[in-house]
Amino acid sequence: MPREYHVAIAGATGAVGEEFRKLLEERSFPLASVRLLASSRSQGKKLRFRGDSVPVEVMTPSSFEGCDIAFFSAGASRSREFAPAAVAAGSVVIDNSSAFRMEPDVPLVIPEINPEDIAKHRGIIANPNCSTIIALMAIAPLRALGKLRRIVVSTYQAASGAGAQAMHELLEQSRAYLDGRPVVPKVFPHPIAFNLFSHNTPVGSDGYNEEERKMILESRKILHDDSLRVTATCIRVPILRAHAESINVEFEGTRPPTSLIRETLFRSPGIELADDVEHGRFPMPIEATSRDAVLVGRIREDASNENAIEMFVCGDQILKGAALNGFQIALKWAEGQAQ
Amino acid sequence: MPREYHVAIAGATGAVGEEFRKLLEERSFPLASVRLLASSRSQGKKLRFRGDSVPVEVMTPSSFEGCDIAFFSAGASRSREFAPAAVAAGSVVIDNSSAFRMEPDVPLVIPEINPEDIAKHRGIIANPNCSTIIALMAIAPLRALGKLRRIVVSTYQAASGAGAQAMHELLEQSRAYLDGRPVVPKVFPHPIAFNLFSHNTPVGSDGYNEEERKMILESRKILHDDSLRVTATCIRVPILRAHAESINVEFEGTRPPTSLIRETLFRSPGIELADDVEHGRFPMPIEATSRDAVLVGRIREDASNENAIEMFVCGDQILKGAALNGFQIALKWAEGQAQ
Repeated sequence: MPREYHVAIAGATGAVGEEFRKLLEERSFPLASVRLLASSRSQGKKLRFRGDSVPVEVMTPSSFEGCDIAFFSAGASRSREFAPAAVAAGSVVIDNSSAFRMEPDVPLVIPEINPEDIAKHRGIIANPNCSTIIALMAIAPLRALGKLRRIVVSTYQAASGAGAQAMHELLEQSRAYLDGRPVVPKVFPHPIAFNLFSHNTPVGSDGYNEEERKMILESRKILHDDSLRVTATCIRVPILRAHAESINVEFEGTRPPTSLIRETLFRSPGIELADDVEHGRFPMPIEATSRDAVLVGRIREDASNENAIEMFVCGDQILKGAALNGFQIALKWAEGQAQ
Repeated sequence: MPREYHVAIAGATGAVGEEFRKLLEERSFPLASVRLLASSRSQGKKLRFRGDSVPVEVMTPSSFEGCDIAFFSAGASRSREFAPAAVAAGSVVIDNSSAFRMEPDVPLVIPEINPEDIAKHRGIIANPNCSTIIALMAIAPLRALGKLRRIVVSTYQAASGAGAQAMHELLEQSRAYLDGRPVVPKVFPHPIAFNLFSHNTPVGSDGYNEEERKMILESRKILHDDSLRVTATCIRVPILRAHAESINVEFEGTRPPTSLIRETLFRSPGIELADDVEHGRFPMPIEATSRDAVLVGRIREDASNENAIEMFVCGDQILKGAALNGFQIALKWAEGQAQ
């Protein structure tokens, strides 16, 4: 009989934490117990889990006693503060924050792409940034068709990336705008209703914001390719929970035919082709929302570079962009334990 | 005393036609009279113009008798049908549709970029596509700093590009979504509220849609540079009337320093720098709306290509993307007449 695991969710009341809970509740997983952890703001709260009412506990360093797996999704500073305690208690930490992603001894994993890195962990496995996961799901399979040289990405990122409150803010501001009331930004620094803006992370001296830098550095780490050239422009758009990305991929040599790219992506797990010109089908947030698969479409030869192709992708930011990817890491890790 | 001109607006009741009327009403122009033309659907309608109530006339081939300038913004098929009659009547046609843009003897003009082409007209001067104008306003001045090699664009296009009804649809669908009512697309083929989709123009056998093809071909024509490599991905987003574009520009040789790019754009007419990292300023639709200037920001060296730079632009689709550019063409044309 396979082992069953005691699981903690650190940040259980956030948008991603809620999705972790749902995944553990609804999908097949060798689960012994679940512990819901959050900050003191959620003290006294209870959440449903498989028919039970589970109290939300205030996270402390001793919250992880007896845990086998700890999903962290409470922000980078909480991860830095509590993940070491979870590891010390014998838990494997699957961290959705940016805290440890670029640490050399922390694997950064998309299970469809580099599952073999999971075994290298020393307590912490990092979940990549949402935009990176969604882009790489479509980009990584192309390596089978030729070495990649350069990637140019522009993102259309949903409010959910900034949490449940940001999604609420988009809806509230939209209603205010429609009712002729003033739009007052609280979560985001700028109005998000009927507006878009450069991703609200600090901009470095190189002019890239942190979200863009994540895409550049994380892509190289996940693909184990330090020579890969990546540039990104990350933009927040008034969409609820699915990110879209316009991606230009240049190969080192001659690009593969688009028919072969479609075939390769069609056969890639976690990808769904949404690329039907005749029926006007292409990736859209309303179709990608609440779906596991990353949708890929608009695949075409780049008219400006004979070695490049263009494509457009869309994926649920909370699912494959965060909780689902972490859940899949846990499944792969558990498979490894069972062997 | 300078001459004054009799002006007709063909498509006076549309979003762009209304803006032509406002520009003629509010700005300095040597205007003798204005004639408002539309389809029979607007018969009987009257519109205010400088205190007068002007009847909307049904457009016929004889509508242009005595006109000096005819602004056309009633769609490509109406332009093809009626522009020849206007030219035959002695009017110069400034056509906002795609009908004649790529005809070899029709100048395609952005007055800040290629005003000299105006004089080459044989009756028709074409106003470029909105996305092309907004992108080129920021791209063209860079030619002073080095030969351009390749441009990679991803657009974030507002509903207004599809007309006043499309803007109305965005608002109506947003309200329906917020009220929990079904979202029923009428103008656009897909829901636009809290969604985005590939530009709703036909896709060719090369995989590019018409909007993207316009950006590629019109850019080369306006810049008089057939060797310029351009690729574009055109996406409609839930924004009312300002387009945004993520633009990667590669130079033939070494890229100029970003300080010089900023200086050059700062001095370029029709451009406003919105590129202040310290104060979190970058181009946003809510700032570009109802503004003449195209906002440019996020200017940085491309981390993936030593000859390329990245930037982000935003401009009012109805103003500089359409009516204002046409109005400026008329002004330049009138200046030429006066000489």
